[in-house]
Amino acid sequence: MSFELHPRLQADTLTLGDAPLSRLLLMNDARYPWVILVPRRPTAREIYLLSEADQQLLWQESAAVSRALMEACPGDKLNVAALGNMVPQLHLHHIVRRHDDPAWPAPVWGHSAAVAYEPEAAHRRMALIRATLILPLQTVPETSS
Amino acid sequence: MSFELHPRLQADTLTLGDAPLSRLLLMNDARYPWVILVPRRPTAREIYLLSEADQQLLWQESAAVSRALMEACPGDKLNVAALGNMVPQLHLHHIVRRHDDPAWPAPVWGHSAAVAYEPEAAHRRMALIRATLILPLQTVPETSS
Repeated sequence: MSFELHPRLQADTLTLGDAPLSRLLLMNDARYPWVILVPRRPTAREIYLLSEADQQLLWQESAAVSRALMEACPGDKLNVAALGNMVPQLHLHHIVRRHDDPAWPAPVWGHSAAVAYEPEAAHRRMALIRATLILPLQTVPETSS
Repeated sequence: MSFELHPRLQADTLTLGDAPLSRLLLMNDARYPWVILVPRRPTAREIYLLSEADQQLLWQESAAVSRALMEACPGDKLNVAALGNMVPQLHLHHIVRRHDDPAWPAPVWGHSAAVAYEPEAAHRRMALIRATLILPLQTVPETSS
């Protein structure tokens, strides 16, 4: 069984690349610096059900993404969350929050409709995150991205 | 600087005990099986800023709590989240969600006011979680709980 990104995640995000365990996605909402990690394990639904080795990789990748996001796009608080109530495929949100962002201090999920990036702004943010990230990142081929 | 639980967490929860890194709290909301881990590090605000050893402990404790909660109080999905927009002290939520719970599929935070446990029900749930948990758990003295 090969890994396929859930269509909802595919539709809502831009692809940053593949780290050793996870696909890294930028949520297409220009209001929040927001990266999602999706472990490339086709049947994964809960973090604690991953193998110990995969859990360790996931948390290393999460820490690297957390640090890069807060350095590239500084904010007041980082929200890290695995919810999955709407999309059952295991995915881990990392969202930089600011006291002046639209949803603060409420969670962002369900608050209001996303505001898509202008292409140039998306390109800049993705380049900045990739440059700050201390993780090997492979390009995802178009056919599987 | 010694560890003191944030007054908001103190007021909203019942104390399960101290694991090697974290204080374990049961959210006093009978509608959701909901355990919060609070690393006993006075200045901690973000997971990625903990030492590597502490991060590893936190994720081990998180996996143990996740497994125990889903075994003791089975549900459809586990939500795991470090938000901290309201309470800056680092804390990690673990919430068993069910398709028939009041907030499903929305996040629980900010959905509706908590429904406190009856004392007997709280006692039963805490005993069940403690019995299922594969973690050394120390009683927290009254004065510091």
